[in-house]
Amino acid sequence: MFAISPNSRIRKSPFYDATVRAGATSFTTYNHMLMPTGYGDAEAEYWRLIQGVSMWDVAVERQIELRGRNAARLAQILSPRDLSACDVDQGKYVALCNHAGTIINDPILLKLADDRFWLSIADCDILHWARAIAAERGLDVTVIEADVSPLAVQGPKADDVVAAIFGDWVRWLKHFRFRRTTIDGIPVAVARSGWSRQGGFELYLMDGSKGTALWDIVHEAGAPFDIGPGYPNPCERVESGLLSWGGDTDDATNPFEVRLGAYVDLDVPDDVVGIPALRHIAERGPGRHQLGVVLEGDRPSAPVLEWLDIHRDGTRIGAMTNGVWSRRMKANIGFALVSVEARPGNPVSVLRDGELVPGRLTDLPFIGR
Amino acid sequence: MFAISPNSRIRKSPFYDATVRAGATSFTTYNHMLMPTGYGDAEAEYWRLIQGVSMWDVAVERQIELRGRNAARLAQILSPRDLSACDVDQGKYVALCNHAGTIINDPILLKLADDRFWLSIADCDILHWARAIAAERGLDVTVIEADVSPLAVQGPKADDVVAAIFGDWVRWLKHFRFRRTTIDGIPVAVARSGWSRQGGFELYLMDGSKGTALWDIVHEAGAPFDIGPGYPNPCERVESGLLSWGGDTDDATNPFEVRLGAYVDLDVPDDVVGIPALRHIAERGPGRHQLGVVLEGDRPSAPVLEWLDIHRDGTRIGAMTNGVWSRRMKANIGFALVSVEARPGNPVSVLRDGELVPGRLTDLPFIGR
Repeated sequence: MFAISPNSRIRKSPFYDATVRAGATSFTTYNHMLMPTGYGDAEAEYWRLIQGVSMWDVAVERQIELRGRNAARLAQILSPRDLSACDVDQGKYVALCNHAGTIINDPILLKLADDRFWLSIADCDILHWARAIAAERGLDVTVIEADVSPLAVQGPKADDVVAAIFGDWVRWLKHFRFRRTTIDGIPVAVARSGWSRQGGFELYLMDGSKGTALWDIVHEAGAPFDIGPGYPNPCERVESGLLSWGGDTDDATNPFEVRLGAYVDLDVPDDVVGIPALRHIAERGPGRHQLGVVLEGDRPSAPVLEWLDIHRDGTRIGAMTNGVWSRRMKANIGFALVSVEARPGNPVSVLRDGELVPGRLTDLPFIGR
Repeated sequence: MFAISPNSRIRKSPFYDATVRAGATSFTTYNHMLMPTGYGDAEAEYWRLIQGVSMWDVAVERQIELRGRNAARLAQILSPRDLSACDVDQGKYVALCNHAGTIINDPILLKLADDRFWLSIADCDILHWARAIAAERGLDVTVIEADVSPLAVQGPKADDVVAAIFGDWVRWLKHFRFRRTTIDGIPVAVARSGWSRQGGFELYLMDGSKGTALWDIVHEAGAPFDIGPGYPNPCERVESGLLSWGGDTDDATNPFEVRLGAYVDLDVPDDVVGIPALRHIAERGPGRHQLGVVLEGDRPSAPVLEWLDIHRDGTRIGAMTNGVWSRRMKANIGFALVSVEARPGNPVSVLRDGELVPGRLTDLPFIGR
């Protein structure tokens, strides 16, 4: 690991001061912003998420707000998923695509009102994308990056912590549903969501000046449950089969290739960006699909920094798009974006540092349903 | 400084291996890619640029290629600058704006052929922006991120180094002109450009597998001139008044506010994105302008991580958008994006870590013309 050099182009999170105080030792950047990725004890930070409860600064999940008379129309135009049944205070996972049907982001879309939506985005400038489409189509809608910063509480004890803060109603909140409330005067939206499969919430802080205050409230409420700091965990997310847009996708990836076909509704109106291309891809069938790969060997390898070629019978069939040491499986695992002819169970080899490492394709997720 | 954690979402440069071998100790991210920002001796790295010659991995300046029958039309639609007199093998600095006239990137546009252009972009996903406009307008053009990665050679001895490699013709190359050639079979475009005011070239590597080979050629040719590694230098660029899009601009900044009015041609066709808004802004006059600020004190302060409020007579008049210790001026300096009423010479104070630091507004650049 190398040092990251600071400047004003890469923004701090409202939780930055609190995370530094909590001992953050490493960061990544995402949406032009710093996100903590380590607090000095990766082993403990992993097991805290799996067995207890963990709190994450995920302010980098920026909220692109669509507001105004044509906000709902723009939301649908950007989303190849039928939003007509989406309730206020409900979120939907959507695969934003470009005109070629290539996935350019995979946000949660949150409906705040009939004329107000947030796109809680992955690492890509959807602010400009959404504005381009809106302006070119002459829509009456304002598109801004809102002052909204999620703080995730994840893990099997997350319900207990968030209920201790907001009350027992949070226990009955359904997946991707949210409610707006305040705590000590701080405006938040409490959503059942988060980039892990261990359960939990995201608290959407709606006042960037209150980051430390909200962090402290969660930290204090979590103390009886031994809460500690964490982050979107590279090991857990790979074990759980969660997609990282931009990491596991390239400039030719469509939703069907990366297990997002269930989120595409081919019968949305024809003016939805990318839908003609997606219909065509669906008819012909995608060329690649996403599987897992388990490598031989019982020692952790270095993290994967770039896509690695996967070979079968001497032919390149695709790429390994991430790679971690699974602490539960005790193996080096990763995602494989490979030709649809490749099947779970196939023996393959992965080209790593000039050597062919043997492995086997598997279904995803590695752990869980 | 904190560590940066690696993953496949943030890509390596073709020069990555060479820069690590050269001793890179810190990185930033830019266009979803790693860029070296230090080699362990910031003082020497600065003076090498000012007095000698420095080589930089700036592969993060990605090239968005427009190619096809409507490529020239799209280039003009995206650029509020008259491109009709742009020659093949010529570059132009352009301020890409959105429909509101807000600057969303400040690339060099390079014309490779009548139907082929590159936008050498700052840190924002212009790939998606350009595709959105092209598709919504039904243009016949392909927009891709090309396999092209600049290696900059900057400093007063840059001409000697680049002439030693390619021949004396490079000495007569005019600013922003370029020529395509090969060296040891490696395809490059040699351009007189670069993000410093010390003179030099950018070698646009057109084969990502040849990064180390090109690095070694430059390093060897530069040895007699004591070449060493460098990077877009935060101190030199502030002294020289060079804009960092995204660092010195916000989501309301128009070109007139940041000294780019000379690059806007108000008489381009009406279908150029943002031109109606820019005409309106030009007529009414921008609300802010960009000056320098010199702070009192003769000891280096920490680098500025976020915009700092600037006050005059107890009122906030704008923000300091960057801040460095000037090694030549022996003062803490930065850019001020302030109300147009504020003038060079005005005494101001900058709110830094809860304290008001006195200073004075100045013209830009601090050093040079």
